[in-house]
Amino acid sequence: MRSLAKQIADGDVRAESVVRGVFERIETSETRVCAWEYLGRERALAAARELDRRAASGPLHGIPFGVKDIFDTYDMPTQYGSTIYRDHRPSTDAAAIAMTRRLGGLIVGKTTTTQFATFPPSKTANPHDATRTPGGSSSGSAAAVAAGMVPVAFGTQTTGSIIRPAAFCGCVGYKPSFGTLPRIGVKAITESFDTVGLFTRTVADAAFAVAALAERRELCLAPETHTPRDAPRIGICLTAQWHAAQPETQSLFERLPAQLERAGARVCDVRLPPTFDHLNDAQDLIWQYEMARCLADEHRRFPEQLAPRLRGQLDSGWATPHADYAAAMKRARLARAQFAQAIGDCDVLLTPSAPGEAPPIETTGDPVFCRMWSLLRTPAINVPIARGPSQLPLGVQVIGRGGDDARTLACAQWVEQQFPWERL
Amino acid sequence: MRSLAKQIADGDVRAESVVRGVFERIETSETRVCAWEYLGRERALAAARELDRRAASGPLHGIPFGVKDIFDTYDMPTQYGSTIYRDHRPSTDAAAIAMTRRLGGLIVGKTTTTQFATFPPSKTANPHDATRTPGGSSSGSAAAVAAGMVPVAFGTQTTGSIIRPAAFCGCVGYKPSFGTLPRIGVKAITESFDTVGLFTRTVADAAFAVAALAERRELCLAPETHTPRDAPRIGICLTAQWHAAQPETQSLFERLPAQLERAGARVCDVRLPPTFDHLNDAQDLIWQYEMARCLADEHRRFPEQLAPRLRGQLDSGWATPHADYAAAMKRARLARAQFAQAIGDCDVLLTPSAPGEAPPIETTGDPVFCRMWSLLRTPAINVPIARGPSQLPLGVQVIGRGGDDARTLACAQWVEQQFPWERL
Repeated sequence: MRSLAKQIADGDVRAESVVRGVFERIETSETRVCAWEYLGRERALAAARELDRRAASGPLHGIPFGVKDIFDTYDMPTQYGSTIYRDHRPSTDAAAIAMTRRLGGLIVGKTTTTQFATFPPSKTANPHDATRTPGGSSSGSAAAVAAGMVPVAFGTQTTGSIIRPAAFCGCVGYKPSFGTLPRIGVKAITESFDTVGLFTRTVADAAFAVAALAERRELCLAPETHTPRDAPRIGICLTAQWHAAQPETQSLFERLPAQLERAGARVCDVRLPPTFDHLNDAQDLIWQYEMARCLADEHRRFPEQLAPRLRGQLDSGWATPHADYAAAMKRARLARAQFAQAIGDCDVLLTPSAPGEAPPIETTGDPVFCRMWSLLRTPAINVPIARGPSQLPLGVQVIGRGGDDARTLACAQWVEQQFPWERL
Repeated sequence: MRSLAKQIADGDVRAESVVRGVFERIETSETRVCAWEYLGRERALAAARELDRRAASGPLHGIPFGVKDIFDTYDMPTQYGSTIYRDHRPSTDAAAIAMTRRLGGLIVGKTTTTQFATFPPSKTANPHDATRTPGGSSSGSAAAVAAGMVPVAFGTQTTGSIIRPAAFCGCVGYKPSFGTLPRIGVKAITESFDTVGLFTRTVADAAFAVAALAERRELCLAPETHTPRDAPRIGICLTAQWHAAQPETQSLFERLPAQLERAGARVCDVRLPPTFDHLNDAQDLIWQYEMARCLADEHRRFPEQLAPRLRGQLDSGWATPHADYAAAMKRARLARAQFAQAIGDCDVLLTPSAPGEAPPIETTGDPVFCRMWSLLRTPAINVPIARGPSQLPLGVQVIGRGGDDARTLACAQWVEQQFPWERL
């Protein structure tokens, strides 16, 4: 992505032809994948021609972005996956979108999301197998990037909405440390852990885009970082949810330590202390409690337009006593404060991204291996590293300490380099 | 407020006549005070008649609220104090507003705010003296409550936008601990310390309304809490900003310790450790940095519609290196972690709310005594306790530990009871 931006900025490649290429690839596979809620072809081409007429405006000059349809865009409809917002036209760009445009990025269109970024599936199919789910809730962004339609797309994670679809679709999903990218203008589900992140085809692309948006040059990955001397210290963390791992994930994690050691990593097993037990339950409780409040108006005025399962979760959020919520929040704070210590001298943890290959399209899959890291607000990166029994992608999740995104990205890239992945 | 809600719920008072009373009082003084951006008279009357026809829906049954015009309302225009949003109609209620309606509260109208809740004054005058400022940015909410138009109004504080106008107008302003009330649907200025709060005529009313909205019964104040046995331990904290105190504030704080001790309080001087120096600078830096991002779209597309001073602050926010922002955030985290210890065995601190009486209407006054507490995310309550040389209100600011709102409210009520205040 960095070299593409440079080529466009130098005039060697025209932004307009990049955008034309994007729409050609979308035309080829969109009827099968259904990743898009809205496509802004003419607008994106006009913006590209405008970029081609002037000097580079920033590091994302000419880079085409997909945007999950819970980010407000002033020039495209934004429906939050809900019929309540059919044809809704926000008056303002979400902060992350305005920042993208400010740096020269082009918004190609809006990708599908599940209803208010919760569980009911969207229309999108897994680009590897149309009978399987792409995962949710950032379904369209993951599928569009994995299918090669766009090099980068915005997503969000509250429970498992970046890591899980990235794992199922076979692309990089990067949930940065909480607060790295602004959430203003993104439909809120919780205040406590909604996190803006990205899907890309390589770890380096994810690092480059977030470094540009957050103006943090130290996140960029230099190729020379990854000499054997820099092989990371990796903790394998099967977590208290290991019982949910499918056979393909079990066998992946049996092979993994030896493979990583052969590549030069120092590998150990990490068992987190009891403070970290039951964090999934705490995440679920806080999610329901805060979601009921974030969607208070929709729940009050349009209950019949909410999926029954979602309505039940909102009812449950309203029925939760504040004391239980406060206790869960306290447990989360405690675990956050202990996490950096708890992983000892490890640079990062490696843990499953999802139970296994993408399940059938009737669900969005189980976020069981993501909840805890959403609650802990750590950086999390899905790296696709293998294929399962049905030839569908399997990913591992690289987890770092809160705020330690530079090292987490470097380790994720190291892992990526050990397991060359054949992209679609 | 609690007894009014009970009377309406019991059918002894009609919600409709309460709303009629509100609009009569607005008619009497609005031309002088100019507290409202929009009045929803017919809608509020219809909602009141609807309430009168059915059983109480919640603890706020029939209570009329004013709402600062940076909270989205689905049935009233919402302009964020900016011509960019002239006639803007949000499609959704802010979470706090939907929650208010859910509990039976009535939305009377939208109160004035400064441009995007920053410094340029709105049209509102101080209800005590039309040549003086009501303060900002929750100008209309403070003035409307102080003038007796509504018993309660929503405000927000990022720098000093609740405590300062409450002090200038002579009403209670309550900024709860960060995160107590949801911010979803409130125009964001910073993610780090925007806080939703309330203006009321008494501390008990503020406690009652926030207890209802946050479903935290323990915040309600029982009259019997305030026997002399419960006289609080109060730390007088003049802060590193004391040089900004006007003569009326200096003399108030000279008299205060003896008056509080006579009333039974234990009083000591509190000097915060060096970690707390320069927090005002850190708040200012973070505010500009995050505000530039929160208003990225408005700054990109409508720069000419921003006040020059605001535009300068946004430019400065974009020019701030991320490393400086990260350092300020780190300083804030450190101070937050130390605050509970730093105030020793004090229940609360007492500190100025503002330099002195309300200044002339050309400014919104100096938030110098508020910045630090916004950054620290502590509960803060303005209690009007005296009048200055021009017979304008003077308030004190009661500060508690983060999360310790129940004790902070109880202490604020105790202070209120020692200094009977003649309301407008």
